[in-house]
Amino acid sequence: MREVFIDGVGMTKFGKHLDRSLTDLMVEAANRALKDSSTPEIEAIFIGAQNPEEFTGEANLATNVADKLGLAGIPAYRVETASSSGASVLEMAFYAVASGRYNRVLVVAGEKMCHLPTSKVTKILAEVIEEYERNSGASMVALAAMVTQSYAHYAGLSKDHLEKILCKIAIKNHRNGALNPYAQFQKEIDEETYFNSRFISYPLRLYDCAPITDGAAALVLTSSRTDVKISGIGHGTDTIAVRHRVHLHHFNAARIAAREAYKMANRSPEDIQFAELHDAFTCFEIIGAEDMGIFEEGKGWKMVEKGITEIDGDLPINPSGGLKSRGHPVGASGLAQAVEIVWQMRGAVSKERQVKRNDIALLHSIGGMSNNNVVAIFEKPGTPMGKGFFFDRKIEDASKHKKDPIRVGEFGILDAYTILNVPPEGFPSPLVLGLVSVPSGHRVLARALNPITFKVGERVFVSKEEDTFYFVRPSTLEKAMLTLRRNLRKLKLSLKWRLR
Amino acid sequence: MREVFIDGVGMTKFGKHLDRSLTDLMVEAANRALKDSSTPEIEAIFIGAQNPEEFTGEANLATNVADKLGLAGIPAYRVETASSSGASVLEMAFYAVASGRYNRVLVVAGEKMCHLPTSKVTKILAEVIEEYERNSGASMVALAAMVTQSYAHYAGLSKDHLEKILCKIAIKNHRNGALNPYAQFQKEIDEETYFNSRFISYPLRLYDCAPITDGAAALVLTSSRTDVKISGIGHGTDTIAVRHRVHLHHFNAARIAAREAYKMANRSPEDIQFAELHDAFTCFEIIGAEDMGIFEEGKGWKMVEKGITEIDGDLPINPSGGLKSRGHPVGASGLAQAVEIVWQMRGAVSKERQVKRNDIALLHSIGGMSNNNVVAIFEKPGTPMGKGFFFDRKIEDASKHKKDPIRVGEFGILDAYTILNVPPEGFPSPLVLGLVSVPSGHRVLARALNPITFKVGERVFVSKEEDTFYFVRPSTLEKAMLTLRRNLRKLKLSLKWRLR
Repeated sequence: MREVFIDGVGMTKFGKHLDRSLTDLMVEAANRALKDSSTPEIEAIFIGAQNPEEFTGEANLATNVADKLGLAGIPAYRVETASSSGASVLEMAFYAVASGRYNRVLVVAGEKMCHLPTSKVTKILAEVIEEYERNSGASMVALAAMVTQSYAHYAGLSKDHLEKILCKIAIKNHRNGALNPYAQFQKEIDEETYFNSRFISYPLRLYDCAPITDGAAALVLTSSRTDVKISGIGHGTDTIAVRHRVHLHHFNAARIAAREAYKMANRSPEDIQFAELHDAFTCFEIIGAEDMGIFEEGKGWKMVEKGITEIDGDLPINPSGGLKSRGHPVGASGLAQAVEIVWQMRGAVSKERQVKRNDIALLHSIGGMSNNNVVAIFEKPGTPMGKGFFFDRKIEDASKHKKDPIRVGEFGILDAYTILNVPPEGFPSPLVLGLVSVPSGHRVLARALNPITFKVGERVFVSKEEDTFYFVRPSTLEKAMLTLRRNLRKLKLSLKWRLR
Repeated sequence: MREVFIDGVGMTKFGKHLDRSLTDLMVEAANRALKDSSTPEIEAIFIGAQNPEEFTGEANLATNVADKLGLAGIPAYRVETASSSGASVLEMAFYAVASGRYNRVLVVAGEKMCHLPTSKVTKILAEVIEEYERNSGASMVALAAMVTQSYAHYAGLSKDHLEKILCKIAIKNHRNGALNPYAQFQKEIDEETYFNSRFISYPLRLYDCAPITDGAAALVLTSSRTDVKISGIGHGTDTIAVRHRVHLHHFNAARIAAREAYKMANRSPEDIQFAELHDAFTCFEIIGAEDMGIFEEGKGWKMVEKGITEIDGDLPINPSGGLKSRGHPVGASGLAQAVEIVWQMRGAVSKERQVKRNDIALLHSIGGMSNNNVVAIFEKPGTPMGKGFFFDRKIEDASKHKKDPIRVGEFGILDAYTILNVPPEGFPSPLVLGLVSVPSGHRVLARALNPITFKVGERVFVSKEEDTFYFVRPSTLEKAMLTLRRNLRKLKLSLKWRLR
């Protein structure tokens, strides 16, 4: 494979751009990247976007962007892998240059969402969720909340401890965003603000979730040597249904992508000096760092506590402010991460937000509920090789998931649950959803009959009514069964009496 | 670049599949291609689809297909370039294999449209049209009708002569489709049927237009030598607005794509032995063959008359039945063309529909109203080289189109017009649209004030009311102006009378 380097980079400010089209935003980002390049000449355009058709009604986006850039004629393609589209389009462009087909290509990714009401945006975003889970009321935040709970359980974090860690991540990313002129949120937040914000889906608060954002990012890939090289890129998928996964507390797709990227770069996690990770939800930053092999499994939260992930820490994570604070135009985020990494490597950011070591960095982008992920490794050419390829995270065979069980009722273990305060249309609020493992080895997504709080790991009873699974605490169930038995006895007595 | 070969191929029957999802169709096609392969092992999945989100509500399609194939884990990507998505995803997969990244990948493309009412399908398809043209009432068929008229004018074909040629193409493609067990329409049509069918958008009849179709196609690309090689692949774009183009009677994007494909393959048009061309509208088959350099410019229709494009002719075009008869699931068609070519090259079709010479073939796929096109050349390894690369079609610089003029009224030349009998919602039926060149060098898309027939090349008067351009025959205009003047005189007289 030919080596692939990055020439110019650029992006729009992330935030609300109500008066402009997605194409306009992409053209702005593209022109900035071209202006930042050694030459504006390019041979092809690669576009990334998750769902412009439904967000803005803009279809045929690749041609539209090429035409508005005054470049009609040259090849233009669009790549989509849900919320990792910005990273996947970088990957496709990488192969096109690595193959020798093109020497210089423009990569642009963007999304425009702010003009729509939140409920509509949530609905469009939820289309990437597996059908049954979506129809059960699971939104992205609800699934993320259950993953967060599962992680806390695995890592042995108490409810209070988990909250403190998540709060620290939110505060750090807001602090970083406040220093980034391209970030959507340029204000710091404190503990009080965090803890006063409402639960969107317990245990995730408003400040744990990336916002709705408009924006675009762009860069030029070239086969000619520059000061930044993409040395490795990897991609992995997972079962689209979260309930079909072996584990809930880490992401298999992330690990596959990381392994492939390290292998191509002949690097290991210990080579990484800073990273841009997909913190669509605060906890994903820790899970991501663990999946990348950067932090020990189940111990990533300690690095947050120690301040290691801060800009001036030993391993800065999301110096940009991350998706949380820079904003998350879904199809753009993966490429915006690359732009930030290049700026940090070139020392092109203000002194206050410059990471100390900037020779090798890692990007991790998540597609959907972590079922289409991309990892890329960037380095300055000539950076000394470390020990070579090494990656020890366990990877499961995701392909052999089990179908949903069909038994009428059985006991199981509650792997995770969430209280969703803003459920999709047609569902009661709050909606309590749980993932329950049953003895047959299956896991079901079930709805709590009563909106009460549970404990991860507790024993629950699951039953199915039509297509919906419900779960109850056995004590509740036993009470109900007792009542039922009592009623049956009364019925029998009354029948006996009548028959006499 | 590494050489790239095709292993197994497969497709679903094209037609109506009301009881199945798009993912199901893609999985069926994929499994057929895998079963047809020397080994079912693959390293990545490349998915092509134009707009599954709006057609069926299926998002995150790459992951969905990977998961349903039981392959969750391996990389999965989606590529989109409007109606050439099936060919573009082949191209992206080609580069990924050519680069050395993957040795064996699965390429699947599909679309599902039949479950929606025609008006809804037309509306979704129209989203790929440039905004102003779409808002003026131009649908895909209306634009194609004007391109057809412009071609006839350029080629010197009378109205009757043009109709006879288009009819011959429709009859040929239906005859070919009747022999193809995968085709949507497996019935021949005759002249009577053709001429009795209604005009959708004059001069295009029902039988000039590809139908609405469900279906999927798949193949496996590999770096290991097989009996079919992709020797060249090229891509070109054009202005998204049809009115911004230098010429209307041929497609610049097609020529750019063809040039690049021939160059990569070191071939020339005279090497091509048969072709699958994008006949979304009958006339596009002739225009396409001319753009590919296969037939002389403005003379392609003669080859149709002579029967050269029949299956048993010297240069068969669309032995599959083409989009016209095999059907046109928009995102699938480009890849279905490749499947047909491989079958023909392997002699895997029934004797009646086997082309005579099958060593080198060409595929041309059109995205949008011919603004995102792909050309690929397939050959049996070891086929003797011809004279090498040669391609003499003129290619314009599409990038420097002129903005729409803003003058209030002026005379111009009618380059093409159409009478659209099923216009989009909110427009009168019939809707007469015309493309008018004005002296400043601009071309405007205008609406006729009166629904009368015109002649291509005639002098018309264009005026603008708010955002809409209108055109009238000067005689009509002169009459209107006379009436206006007369009325003004009357008004003046009456005013004078009152003032007295």
